[in-house]
Amino acid sequence: MGSDAAMSPKITVELLRQLRQAMRNTKYIAEPIQAYIVPSGDAHQSEYIAPCDCRREFICGFNGSAGTAIVTEKHAAMWTDGRYFLQASQQMDNNWTLMKMGLKETLSQEDWLISVLPENSTVGVDPWIIAADQWKNMSKALASAGHSLVAVQDNLIDAIWMDRPTRPSTQLLTLGLGFTGLTWQDKMTALRSKMAERKISWFVATALDEIAWLFNLRGSDIEYNPVFFAYAIVGMNTIRLFVDIKRLAVPTVREHLQLDTPSKVELSIQTAPYESVFTELQAVCASLGPKEKVWISDKASCALMQVIAKAHRSPIPYTPLCLAKAVKNATEIQGMKMAHIKDAVALCELFAWLEKEIPKGTVTEISAADKAEELRSQQKDFVGLSFPSISSVGPNGAIIHYRPLPETNRTLSLNEIYLLDSGAQYIDGTTDVTRTMHFGSPSAYEKETFTYVLKGHIAVSAAIFPNGTKGHLLDSFARQALWDSGLDYLHGTGHGVGCFLNVHEGPCGISYKTFADEPLEAGMIVSDEPGYYEDGLFGIRIENVVLVVPAKPKYNYRNKGSLTFEPLTLVPIQAKMVNTDLLTQKERDWVNEYHRQCRETIGAELERQGRKEAMDWLIRETQPIA
Amino acid sequence: MGSDAAMSPKITVELLRQLRQAMRNTKYIAEPIQAYIVPSGDAHQSEYIAPCDCRREFICGFNGSAGTAIVTEKHAAMWTDGRYFLQASQQMDNNWTLMKMGLKETLSQEDWLISVLPENSTVGVDPWIIAADQWKNMSKALASAGHSLVAVQDNLIDAIWMDRPTRPSTQLLTLGLGFTGLTWQDKMTALRSKMAERKISWFVATALDEIAWLFNLRGSDIEYNPVFFAYAIVGMNTIRLFVDIKRLAVPTVREHLQLDTPSKVELSIQTAPYESVFTELQAVCASLGPKEKVWISDKASCALMQVIAKAHRSPIPYTPLCLAKAVKNATEIQGMKMAHIKDAVALCELFAWLEKEIPKGTVTEISAADKAEELRSQQKDFVGLSFPSISSVGPNGAIIHYRPLPETNRTLSLNEIYLLDSGAQYIDGTTDVTRTMHFGSPSAYEKETFTYVLKGHIAVSAAIFPNGTKGHLLDSFARQALWDSGLDYLHGTGHGVGCFLNVHEGPCGISYKTFADEPLEAGMIVSDEPGYYEDGLFGIRIENVVLVVPAKPKYNYRNKGSLTFEPLTLVPIQAKMVNTDLLTQKERDWVNEYHRQCRETIGAELERQGRKEAMDWLIRETQPIA
Repeated sequence: MGSDAAMSPKITVELLRQLRQAMRNTKYIAEPIQAYIVPSGDAHQSEYIAPCDCRREFICGFNGSAGTAIVTEKHAAMWTDGRYFLQASQQMDNNWTLMKMGLKETLSQEDWLISVLPENSTVGVDPWIIAADQWKNMSKALASAGHSLVAVQDNLIDAIWMDRPTRPSTQLLTLGLGFTGLTWQDKMTALRSKMAERKISWFVATALDEIAWLFNLRGSDIEYNPVFFAYAIVGMNTIRLFVDIKRLAVPTVREHLQLDTPSKVELSIQTAPYESVFTELQAVCASLGPKEKVWISDKASCALMQVIAKAHRSPIPYTPLCLAKAVKNATEIQGMKMAHIKDAVALCELFAWLEKEIPKGTVTEISAADKAEELRSQQKDFVGLSFPSISSVGPNGAIIHYRPLPETNRTLSLNEIYLLDSGAQYIDGTTDVTRTMHFGSPSAYEKETFTYVLKGHIAVSAAIFPNGTKGHLLDSFARQALWDSGLDYLHGTGHGVGCFLNVHEGPCGISYKTFADEPLEAGMIVSDEPGYYEDGLFGIRIENVVLVVPAKPKYNYRNKGSLTFEPLTLVPIQAKMVNTDLLTQKERDWVNEYHRQCRETIGAELERQGRKEAMDWLIRETQPIA
Repeated sequence: MGSDAAMSPKITVELLRQLRQAMRNTKYIAEPIQAYIVPSGDAHQSEYIAPCDCRREFICGFNGSAGTAIVTEKHAAMWTDGRYFLQASQQMDNNWTLMKMGLKETLSQEDWLISVLPENSTVGVDPWIIAADQWKNMSKALASAGHSLVAVQDNLIDAIWMDRPTRPSTQLLTLGLGFTGLTWQDKMTALRSKMAERKISWFVATALDEIAWLFNLRGSDIEYNPVFFAYAIVGMNTIRLFVDIKRLAVPTVREHLQLDTPSKVELSIQTAPYESVFTELQAVCASLGPKEKVWISDKASCALMQVIAKAHRSPIPYTPLCLAKAVKNATEIQGMKMAHIKDAVALCELFAWLEKEIPKGTVTEISAADKAEELRSQQKDFVGLSFPSISSVGPNGAIIHYRPLPETNRTLSLNEIYLLDSGAQYIDGTTDVTRTMHFGSPSAYEKETFTYVLKGHIAVSAAIFPNGTKGHLLDSFARQALWDSGLDYLHGTGHGVGCFLNVHEGPCGISYKTFADEPLEAGMIVSDEPGYYEDGLFGIRIENVVLVVPAKPKYNYRNKGSLTFEPLTLVPIQAKMVNTDLLTQKERDWVNEYHRQCRETIGAELERQGRKEAMDWLIRETQPIA
């Protein structure tokens, strides 16, 4: 029952009227504001957010993971990137202008505001939702054009959002050494030694995944991301954890955090309500000595950043927790490997099942995604999905972050390409894998473009590069084969992946955007996922999660050492989609060696689990290509 | 008469004593300063500088093109990059610490200062010599550690430099339409329309090459760079040119600039002495309306930047002149092609001569460079070299920006690799070419590494990439073959090249450093020069100047269009150095097609000039490889 019908846009006439009324309402602001910015994130700059924080979606209808809405008295515009152009244009009504980021002709938010605002305008934003670095840039740009950016304490979306959900407070899960490799006490000690090294007295942790990692705790406050709403403030002898206090009533949690029997005074945790972080940070800052410095992420909320006087503030692009968390220890690597083996078992089963079921015409994007989730959930220590499955047939595959809805749901067939980008959270690790398959006979053009994408995938995966190389320097390797034919894709090539944490994490990645990525190091884990998208026809993406490992090439220039990648994802890449004439011998060897590993490692686990049909499928799909 | 003797270091004990005395002398500063920064550049942030501006060389002895010296009461340190590590360590005595930029363990200037300075120190710098953006960063970093950066109006190096040369004021050369393609009046109109577009009232031109380009004038104040000391201030109806007034007495210059008979009032140039720019800019700024904005490069001197009140200041990383100058027009492209043909003729002659002379044992690095200059000088419209020739034999080749001196001068032989990186200024264009040759039998290792470098050179030169791609995204293509074998080189892959202007120019380039390079556009001209350097043994570099041109691959994704490079340099690449087994068929085809073009284009000119020996050499060196 596939359908070409577009997602229907949200009708926003009335909401925009109400928001504009609120922008003039002295209940919220002393003077009317001429524009109101609605950023995407929550107070922790999370990528995925809880329903109560989906304010940008509420006002404009677009529910992708990245986008900023700005409403002025006359205009309403929403900025998002190439992954979401199609989706956003389908979800927003014509009160909204889609601002396509990355295109030359698209104005930045600042330039657009300057172009539409009357002289001496005031632009408002919720200081808890905007990151400090964004506030700074926006404020400066507006000031240079005679406007001003002001903090509006009451969130104006919340003011007009009648049935806004409450903030979740789920049960906390404690993780032992067998999963984390390091106690939270050891992590705290390592953090403090980094602080001492840089003469820092206090560190304010605001990112939810960093807090979860630091305390070896997990939650389920945000769908797909096993985190919980919290803040932490760490001093050399103090640890303050801000979290809904009733979550700490559970004995296992109290014991894990040693709340009742702290071993050492400097490892005793003082707990306080989530909301009290503002006043507590004020208190900490009020007692600072003249030379004392406070570390805080420059992506922390403007509200918290501004609590710290400039003289004491030391904002950093990546916190020591972010950097430590990115380099996985041996236990975490082992867990990630196990998680990927289980995940591959589920996918082999899925693809074997699809092969059998598709000819019946009964499998849809939604039912295929559901089946994948069901099969994953049978695996040990499964917790949930790591992001909404992108299960897309034919033209839906060209919507890069597509999510099937009843009104867009297409049926899998022998005639169209099927793209499945999905992953799961297991207690031992997080997965994220994309495979693009054809269950009938792919066209020459589909095979050609698939092969270019595969060449790009291999070029990154097999790349050897010096220690200290930043991931963005590898991005062009993924595009070279496409570029040679005049093709490209409008997204980055890879992102960091957490270990039973967020499926997207910093500070490393592989992208043409030159953000301040940290050099790749052995133990880091990233995705390798080039693609090609033909609007209205199909989408192709081949994604593995890969581990950065030492390489041993012939020479060792200046004893710097070299690195390469080892695939953790072990799911066959469909040979039927490959035009082998376009591959070099080295590339063919890579495919065959990869399939040999799939067969060996996943085959053993399929055998252990007695999953015969998937085993047969695996054997067939891992035949060497010529 | 080759010699392994290192360059002897400059003895700086007495100079440092005098400088430290000046740092405490109330004749120059109200309060003693604890550190003094000596940047590399002049008041225009020129890369190459006049002898009167070689202050960093004067104080530490290191004469490379990039480096900053800092002297404190107890320490003296000098920062430079990988090209110069060896050279700097040879030219500086042990009063100096070499700070190797780009290595992980090397402190930045700011961090180093913070680590060595006593509390509440004052750091001085000449505000005319430090760029505004560097001042800002340095000032902020020092302030955050309780120190302060102060402007010292009298340059303290000048104060102790007894025989400092005077500022040059050479004759100006006027360029007609046949060389520039655009009159200075047209360039002025284009500049003003960019200003109007961005609502800018005034533009302050401070970069010498931008001023030369804007006025279609050239000078020879700085060796190798055909520029002259000047500033310009352009308003919508005003043009002010600040230059040594006696240079304007020449009738051709007066006529070119229409000084006596301006065609239109808004194109009438008011001239004023070079030194008066400060007071004139003060006068302009004093009369600004409340909303008026002044464009100035963020690399302009701190002294000039600070004349403009913050409310009026609009600093930009690349000026509209820099951007316009980078995209060469048809006349300039034609000129650059002609210049490269003449340059290739001279080099073919040189290499034919070297082949004959080297066996006699009479050719040295210096005499080979001299011969190259002599042969170039025989070509039409030759003006001079575009940079000091890097003529290096064997181990000297590993010093990336080596310049032969009598005490380092090696003899060319049949046993060692010879690397010649040289170029010239012709009135129609600027050249820059590197060839690495062996006149005997290269070792397998020399051939292997040469071939990796060649593969990198080809990978960039033959790259096809989407319109709008920034040059830094191509850098890794140049390194891939080296990285695969664990090798690398510690410099960027390419720089912009001026047209009868500076051999290094912005805003585009090809580098692993993610500076704010502008996207590549058809008409831009850059170098492609990967290398490999084995300390103490040899250096390899293969450099062509290449023109960005439209490419026509099979597809055209989103109608964006594609670009590639066309080599302007047409000098054979020595086949003897190539291990053809390591090349792909595509790479072999590239080499053969390149050599076919060399033979066709340079052959015709050699024939026209009746240069038979060079012609024979060209024919031999451009035989197809198998």
